[in-house]
Order: sequence, then C-alpha cells, then structure tokens
Amino acid sequence: MERNDAEPAKRGRGRPPSVEVRRRILETAAVVLLENGVSEVTFDKVARRAGVSRMTLYKWFRSPGSLALAAFEDTYAHTLRPPSSGDVWADLRTHLREFVANLSEPRTGPMIAGLLGSAQSDPVLAEEISATFTRPRREGAVELLHAGRTRGQLPASIDVEVLVDQLWGACYARLLLPEGVLDEAFADALVANLRATIHASAD
Amino acid sequence: MERNDAEPAKRGRGRPPSVEVRRRILETAAVVLLENGVSEVTFDKVARRAGVSRMTLYKWFRSPGSLALAAFEDTYAHTLRPPSSGDVWADLRTHLREFVANLSEPRTGPMIAGLLGSAQSDPVLAEEISATFTRPRREGAVELLHAGRTRGQLPASIDVEVLVDQLWGACYARLLLPEGVLDEAFADALVANLRATIHASAD
Repeated sequence: MERNDAEPAKRGRGRPPSVEVRRRILETAAVVLLENGVSEVTFDKVARRAGVSRMTLYKWFRSPGSLALAAFEDTYAHTLRPPSSGDVWADLRTHLREFVANLSEPRTGPMIAGLLGSAQSDPVLAEEISATFTRPRREGAVELLHAGRTRGQLPASIDVEVLVDQLWGACYARLLLPEGVLDEAFADALVANLRATIHASAD
Repeated sequence: MERNDAEPAKRGRGRPPSVEVRRRILETAAVVLLENGVSEVTFDKVARRAGVSRMTLYKWFRSPGSLALAAFEDTYAHTLRPPSSGDVWADLRTHLREFVANLSEPRTGPMIAGLLGSAQSDPVLAEEISATFTRPRREGAVELLHAGRTRGQLPASIDVEVLVDQLWGACYARLLLPEGVLDEAFADALVANLRATIHASAD
C-alpha cells in the first residue's frame, strides 16, 4: 500500500488507530446525517460506508441517535462560543444571526429538528443533546447576557436565564413549530423587540 | 337492547349514527393518547377498543398521528381562547399560566411534545398540528398583544408576531428542549422580564 502521510511514523505511533477509525465513522455519519436526515443514520449503513464492523459501532455508541449526535457535535461544536465585543447589542445580533443561520440552513436545520424530534421519545438521546449542544449553547448565552447586565446595558432586574428562552428558545420554537419563518430578519426582530421595550419609557 | 336516551326518537333521526361512532373513536383515542402516548395510538388498538372496523378509521383519518391529533383537539380546543380583561398584564399572566399548566401537566405535556416530535418527520401531521392547535393559539395571542399595544400598554414599535415567540414560543422551547423547568414561576418570569425592560428607563 502507498503511504501518503508526510509525518514521521514515530509521531503516529502514540496515536491509537482507533482514533482514526472513530474519525472516519463520525465523518461518514455526518455525511449521512446531512444528506438523508437522522432516521437514515443506522449502524448498518454507517458501518458499511465507513468500512468498519457493526460491533465497533455498538461498542462506541449507545444508539444510532447517539452516533448521529456525536457526528453533529463534531461538525458544529465550533459555532457554540458567543462573541464578546463589550456591546451586548452587537454581540446579541451577531450570535443570534449565526444561530439562526445554522438552524435555517437547508441541511442542518432539518437535522437539528430531527434530532430534537427523536429526543421526544428517547430520554437518553434528550440528555445527550443537552450535554453536547443545547446546554453549552445556553451557558454561552447566559454569559453574554450576564456581561451585558453587569455593564448596565440590560436592566438589573432582568432574569437572564428566562431571557435566554425569550431569544434562543424563540428560535427553537420557530424551528420546531409548523408556522413562523426563521430567518435573519427574525433574529434582528428579537433583538429589536428587546430594545424597543427598554427604550419605550425614554421615548 | 335497552334504550336510555331520554330524547324523542324523532329528534335522533336526523343525526347520522356516524357522529356517534366518530365520538366513540375520538374518546377512545384520547384515552390511549393520555395513558400511553402518541406512539401507542394505532388504528389496530383504537379500532379494537372502540369496537369499530379499521376501515372506518382509514376512511376518516389519514394516519394514526392525525387520529391522535383529532382526539387531542377534541379534548383541549377549549383552552385556546385568550382572556380579555382590558389589562394586558393580567391577561398575559392568566393566559400564559394556563398554557404552561397545560404543557406541564404530566399527561398532556408529553402528549403535546410527542405530537410535535413526530411532526418533525411528518410534514402533513405538522400542518395538521398547525391548523388545529398552534395556529389558533398564535392568533389568540396576537389578538391579546395587539389589544395591549392599541391601549398603549405595550410600546407602539413592538413586533407583536415576534413577541408571541418570545412568550409562548419560549414555553414550547422549555417543553421540547432537554433542559429548563416549565412551571408557573417560568410563566410569571416571562411576563416579569417584559415588564422589567419596559419600566427600566423609568426607574
């Protein structure tokens, strides 16, 4: 077999081959997830396409849903960190726009909706989604809003945890409920509504 | 057979027996839905329990999901109308508390979550849920907020459609996402956050 790896073999020695196998599995699962949706991510299909045994998948992933989620996390975890410019309004707009772009992208949107849909009848998948996706995102959002409140850009009496549901949660609702458009204008309107109420008495 | 109906037979003549059959089917489906969840509402089970043929069910309902939704609508449609006291804050609190009580009730909460979960992979069910449940609720909510804006209780610049997602949508998010508690305190906190921002500049 040809060897294309330019790195010295010595460096590769400490790296267990299982890391490479896992990488290949996750990439394969991500492709299936994006192309066909969560219901098509089966151990059979991913094992065949990735050229690994089904036993390997059973060993590492509790269920096809867990595998799909791990593949999703691997691809999208980098979008979870909030910006921090010092201006809560700029940060909110940037972060919510990015979030909405993610949720409304023709491939990732249905994928996230599908995972959350499956989670309604799979409590373990629900907990996995929380641990890898929705909880880290919430923590980032809380951090962003806390900073704004500390800087006096948001009223001191505001409940930051609840405000997360009124901004990010509203986006999830538009994703998962049958009516309502989820687009950049909606992201901006969420922030505008918050500003409108804050500035109402000053007008 | 014994006849318990106190109404004259003449009056009953114009009423097709199919109405009674339909009623029995919906009541049976509602019981299965409440006791076992949406995945257990099958044509087989409901036909057997209601003492009707499966053909009857196929004739009237597109899918078991549609049947479950019709049963749900039949039981819960009366909770969709918003109050209208003239005070937007009182109305919001009352209506959101009632909504949250519905969504967090141990039997109806998982039922609604299950229907919305199934809808993620069933676009026709999604449209049916919208037509019978989420859209009428949204319309009632918009009406309530519009009235408050007209009375000057909400800023004139507020986007009422988006505000619905920031109040009711936030509750759906808490129902469907794995973290976050959905209780009366949350309903009150949603309203309190809105008031906090409105009164922030006046403080």
